[in-house]
Amino acid sequence: MSHDPTPISDNPAEFTLDPVIAARLKLNDAGLIPAVVQAVDTREVLMMAWMDTHALAYTLATRRGTYYSRSRDEYWIKGLTSGNVQEVTDVALDCDGDTVLVTVHQTGGACHTGARTCFDADPLLGPGQ
Amino acid sequence: MSHDPTPISDNPAEFTLDPVIAARLKLNDAGLIPAVVQAVDTREVLMMAWMDTHALAYTLATRRGTYYSRSRDEYWIKGLTSGNVQEVTDVALDCDGDTVLVTVHQTGGACHTGARTCFDADPLLGPGQ
Repeated sequence: MSHDPTPISDNPAEFTLDPVIAARLKLNDAGLIPAVVQAVDTREVLMMAWMDTHALAYTLATRRGTYYSRSRDEYWIKGLTSGNVQEVTDVALDCDGDTVLVTVHQTGGACHTGARTCFDADPLLGPGQ
Repeated sequence: MSHDPTPISDNPAEFTLDPVIAARLKLNDAGLIPAVVQAVDTREVLMMAWMDTHALAYTLATRRGTYYSRSRDEYWIKGLTSGNVQEVTDVALDCDGDTVLVTVHQTGGACHTGARTCFDADPLLGPGQ
């Protein structure tokens, strides 16, 4: 008789961050930390989003790129509805503990516009300008 | 008789952002926007810092990576004292206007610790963990 593996919860609020990691984070006044997201294969910077401790705990536990939407005031498991999921390979905290770098395998476009990255559409300066 | 070129000002406060660009920026309550900095050659994400409109205007005009230090409450022309300068090749605004991606030729380490990047020292998750 076989058993299905335990399904992964879709509720980041149920996940609590390791206190050793939590003690090293410098959250902003809203309890958030910026997360820079980079593609592991192309090395493109895909997007910048925000995490609270539950989103970070959930990302570390499940390897699903997961953020906190300030505009919608809710957790946002990237790709849960669109299918454009992020499988997280690495997470690193920066030297002063106030930014995380999340490295991912990105399925489809990372941007809500459908573009590959959020930085494709609006160049302000280029090499030849 | 030769003339030296006009020296570049070291005071970003003297630089005003193009109003067309300024109108597209979504600054936070402190008047700042996060800047993700990436190396043009290695594609490493080097650091995350903050800009106000003067720091961005100065960066666009001079191609010197320039930020606003929240802790020191002053402009910070990267490498002006350390020599670890950033020559900016590209600047891109993201899809919702609240983050800039700055691509640079980085001389020396980008991190104040001397490390190549600010994300080298504190991995929270890796591929094999």
